[in-house]
Amino acid sequence: MKFQAPKGTRDFYPAEMAVRRRIESAWREASVAFGFDEIDGPTFEHLELYTAKSGEGIVSELFSFRRAGGSDDYALRPEFTPTLARMAAARAAQLPVPIKWFAVPNFFRAERPQRGRLREFFQWNVDLLGAEGPAIDAEVIGVAVGALARLGLGPADVRVKISHRVAAARLVRALGVAEESVAAAFELLDRRDKMPPEEFTKRAAALGLGGDSLSRFESAVRTRVQLADGIGALAAAAGIPAVELAELEALREALVAAGLGEWCEFDLGIVRGLAYYTGTVFEVHEASGGERAIAGGGRYDGLVELFGGPKTPAIGFGMGDVVLGLVLADRGLLPKDGTELLPRPDAFVISAGDPAADAELPRLVARLRAGGLHVRHSYKATRNVGKLLADASKQRSRFAVILGTELAEGRVQLKDLASGEQRQVALVDLASALRAAGA
Amino acid sequence: MKFQAPKGTRDFYPAEMAVRRRIESAWREASVAFGFDEIDGPTFEHLELYTAKSGEGIVSELFSFRRAGGSDDYALRPEFTPTLARMAAARAAQLPVPIKWFAVPNFFRAERPQRGRLREFFQWNVDLLGAEGPAIDAEVIGVAVGALARLGLGPADVRVKISHRVAAARLVRALGVAEESVAAAFELLDRRDKMPPEEFTKRAAALGLGGDSLSRFESAVRTRVQLADGIGALAAAAGIPAVELAELEALREALVAAGLGEWCEFDLGIVRGLAYYTGTVFEVHEASGGERAIAGGGRYDGLVELFGGPKTPAIGFGMGDVVLGLVLADRGLLPKDGTELLPRPDAFVISAGDPAADAELPRLVARLRAGGLHVRHSYKATRNVGKLLADASKQRSRFAVILGTELAEGRVQLKDLASGEQRQVALVDLASALRAAGA
Repeated sequence: MKFQAPKGTRDFYPAEMAVRRRIESAWREASVAFGFDEIDGPTFEHLELYTAKSGEGIVSELFSFRRAGGSDDYALRPEFTPTLARMAAARAAQLPVPIKWFAVPNFFRAERPQRGRLREFFQWNVDLLGAEGPAIDAEVIGVAVGALARLGLGPADVRVKISHRVAAARLVRALGVAEESVAAAFELLDRRDKMPPEEFTKRAAALGLGGDSLSRFESAVRTRVQLADGIGALAAAAGIPAVELAELEALREALVAAGLGEWCEFDLGIVRGLAYYTGTVFEVHEASGGERAIAGGGRYDGLVELFGGPKTPAIGFGMGDVVLGLVLADRGLLPKDGTELLPRPDAFVISAGDPAADAELPRLVARLRAGGLHVRHSYKATRNVGKLLADASKQRSRFAVILGTELAEGRVQLKDLASGEQRQVALVDLASALRAAGA
Repeated sequence: MKFQAPKGTRDFYPAEMAVRRRIESAWREASVAFGFDEIDGPTFEHLELYTAKSGEGIVSELFSFRRAGGSDDYALRPEFTPTLARMAAARAAQLPVPIKWFAVPNFFRAERPQRGRLREFFQWNVDLLGAEGPAIDAEVIGVAVGALARLGLGPADVRVKISHRVAAARLVRALGVAEESVAAAFELLDRRDKMPPEEFTKRAAALGLGGDSLSRFESAVRTRVQLADGIGALAAAAGIPAVELAELEALREALVAAGLGEWCEFDLGIVRGLAYYTGTVFEVHEASGGERAIAGGGRYDGLVELFGGPKTPAIGFGMGDVVLGLVLADRGLLPKDGTELLPRPDAFVISAGDPAADAELPRLVARLRAGGLHVRHSYKATRNVGKLLADASKQRSRFAVILGTELAEGRVQLKDLASGEQRQVALVDLASALRAAGA
């Protein structure tokens, strides 16, 4: 019999788990620094929670099921926003305002696995509800940048690409798209890399973006404008007055004030496929553009209301572990062997073979562990101290504790495995000696 | 529209999430102290992984599903051991021996939710593979105790009840149960609290446990024998020679050597329902016996082989978050309001209303957060410092940083919200002042 993990899912052996924990720690640390509180919801929800938001079309992308003998339809969560909106709506009257929540759940998509896209993945979600304005949007973008910086990435490695639904709508209308076709234009824009150029041109013309309009549209969405270049540069590329991009100018000022100017750039090509975004939208990409988005999000002021709560301004983003892991590995920001990220043992306890030492070993190990120290020992029959010291080094222990003949006088040998320095320590002082040495 | 979490699942708002993280931290700290490395597997597995171990009967207890258009049957994981055995079998040749792994995954059971039993729950799993003997069994029991002690529980709160499949088999055979009925006797024993006494008596008699045999059997399984009483007391209660319980005597010595004597007691009534246990079995119960088991596990030497690996000695246990949470709450070991467990802000930054202060606030907040400090600020329009200080205290911040007129000289006011003490600090020294104050 041979068994394997389901296609598109992962086994996390200690080395892979250490990498996952490294990423999750950066997410948590940034979240806490920015004053967000952690939440979580069920791994599966009523299927209706997803169809209410995204329509019946989403069902084929979900893993859905019923309990044997049950009548409720459930689905493994494909994203967090519906759960978050449901939770916020359910306690809207009691929750403090603004609500600042983060979560680090796993998600599931029943699609074909490919580079950067798996059937089960982990994703950091950050949401700020009940407040609005450019400073709020900048704060949320700041959390994302905070985690990337903690992982060693800088503005030369990753770019936060920013647009605004309202400004972008004004642009496409100015280019000749009718009011009722704006949503279709956004959808076309979002999918432009997934179709041949002639198909794109044809569909753009049908929406009113023909000839010169299309050239201006292309110029607007393909021009990379740094925040330092100012909103005028973006307006010039788009061929519209700068005042039409006022929301992006306000956001630019807030981002610069929050020290994020270097990390961000305007990109009117960012629309985010999801229909529920209402204002600022952004994606984080690897600087060369060679991978899928590392993160994506935006303002979704109508969603809590959709799930039965009051009208609530809201902005949030998701950052998955898969693309981020690829980018970190590519930049040399993860060790080749993830086991280097595992917690290092404080001490590796060795019996030199005396019966009294053999008897003391389990007692000592238990006492040190009860005191919070990370303690390992050998499971081999050998009492060859040289071989056991090699094992201690192999397990990356800071110290070896050798139980030898001096145990009769209540002392043990404490060997620093980095410096090789060795000294005798009284048994009663061992735990504090290990702690004092930075354990 | 009104949406709710599926029956038997939980929404974790910040207060509930903080409690979950408190429990998970104790699990992780104990695991690391004892030298175990963290792993994880997919949230769903091929359905065959579970039926191979537990038979087709388990299917009705699982949430199982297919991908739309797919042909593979999957199931949400109901437990970790099959995943662990699969992972160990897949890399048996490369993995270091012994394998010491822990995991903190969520599990799913499609049964009726009741006190201590939900449809989705979190469970700590600890397994040690590739080594055997009483010292190994004691080490694994020690990890469980290590986590309970870290959560504030003691031997008067919880009891580790211990038995051994081989010794228990010898007992039931000595009482007249035929070799081929030993497994049935274990199953009956495991379910004795789930049937009326007369039903139990009838079924026991059918297995060869009638009259005097049944009295001795009842005496054996209902007698609580502390480790300090010695194996002789257990043998006397069971009415068999002490030598027949040699495995438990050896385990007793190892548990005492590891400082676990006080926490443990013999209980031949513990058999664990699962057919795959081969040696030591144990459960952790609240001392009064009023709740379901907090943890359960044992030795399962045949399981890795079942999943295609080599013959591998193995012992492990699982400890769920639901019953443990009830016991901790009952003993007053969790705060009434879980938000007390949330990380406390280092600083709450306040602008006293000067335009320069308003402009500096987002810059300062961003700098402090980038430096790893946990910093909050108000989202209200008010510049009333008294009201804002009240907000800072309500958010449990250690310090308030007030941007007032002294900002013109590059200084801010730093107020210790516990002592009320207030002093001026240069802006450039603020981060280190906060850190020096224990932030």
